[in-house]
Amino acid sequence: MSTTPPYLIPSRLAKRTQYDTETICSILDEALFCVISYSVDNRPFAIPTAFVRYEDKIYIHGSVGSHFIREIEKGIPVCISIMLTDALVVAKSAFSHSVNYRSLTIFSKAEKIEDTETKRAAFEWLTNKIVPDSWEYLRPMKDNEVKKTTALAFSFEEASAKTRTGMPNDEEEDLELPIWSGLIPLQTNRLAPIADELSKNIPLPSHLM
Amino acid sequence: MSTTPPYLIPSRLAKRTQYDTETICSILDEALFCVISYSVDNRPFAIPTAFVRYEDKIYIHGSVGSHFIREIEKGIPVCISIMLTDALVVAKSAFSHSVNYRSLTIFSKAEKIEDTETKRAAFEWLTNKIVPDSWEYLRPMKDNEVKKTTALAFSFEEASAKTRTGMPNDEEEDLELPIWSGLIPLQTNRLAPIADELSKNIPLPSHLM
Repeated sequence: MSTTPPYLIPSRLAKRTQYDTETICSILDEALFCVISYSVDNRPFAIPTAFVRYEDKIYIHGSVGSHFIREIEKGIPVCISIMLTDALVVAKSAFSHSVNYRSLTIFSKAEKIEDTETKRAAFEWLTNKIVPDSWEYLRPMKDNEVKKTTALAFSFEEASAKTRTGMPNDEEEDLELPIWSGLIPLQTNRLAPIADELSKNIPLPSHLM
Repeated sequence: MSTTPPYLIPSRLAKRTQYDTETICSILDEALFCVISYSVDNRPFAIPTAFVRYEDKIYIHGSVGSHFIREIEKGIPVCISIMLTDALVVAKSAFSHSVNYRSLTIFSKAEKIEDTETKRAAFEWLTNKIVPDSWEYLRPMKDNEVKKTTALAFSFEEASAKTRTGMPNDEEEDLELPIWSGLIPLQTNRLAPIADELSKNIPLPSHLM
């Protein structure tokens, strides 16, 4: 896009900012957790939580008794922050050090999902994002569990991605210095599942292999 | 501690909340990144950034031109959110799914570091946290680089940790179900360093091995 959307603060590093849906969705679909910030009496509060994107909305869930959920379900402005870190960027000077990352900032407001079927669907999308293909294997969700849980949806129309990729950008006068520069990649892995005592004799389902 | 500090919102899950300095510092010293939230006209904004703890303060840095830095250096209230994720907690029902995590919520206000020596020290602490033992190896920081960079300190007196550990807590009536339950550990690793073109013939320093 050639123009900066009006809701965004101009960034010092415009080249790192992207607004295209493909980039935004790729970050939303890879990250498992976000931090949701909101203001009460001009004081900031922030809570990390799991989320899932489905079509053009982000969904979160929480206990109907959660202070956080009850505050943001009013539809007050929220800022959703997501960051994936890909590498530490090690330059020849500390000043040129950086991080390769893919981050999102989304300004939105919660929309409370009242419809039971959509609520159930949101829990299914979320469960299948955290543990792919697991929903059908689990004990089915009970009506009272759906009642005890709030589902909130957020549009991500007001979203911007910031990303950095590639090698260090050292200062011109530093390029010849015999100091090692490059990347230290960061990678988050899921390790082999560990069964609890109740499951020692239960076969690991195929979606966890 | 037996009493809830007055700045904290009572949590539904009091057993997961901890206020001891040892727990708080262990999370601060392991996490590389935090999300800093602040409010302007009762609207929330949030920025992810690297940080370091040194003694009883947290330090961040940023360009003197950064909109974010210029806003919070005024000393307005901020909420600092940090989360380390240790495992996905896979229960026999979606409702009992959870996450093993160690998170911190800190309410604070920035204190701008004006003293040049403390600023330099903060950059050294931050650099040595991100890449241990690297500061002395790098091209020394120049005076104008120190001038172009703001360092902010935050007390973490108003901090609370929330943590979850251990196996799933399934509902009593689900315990006998032949459904696998347990943990999927999550682990973030630093992979082998990748040299840039300028460093192909420069030995990897010992602190990166």
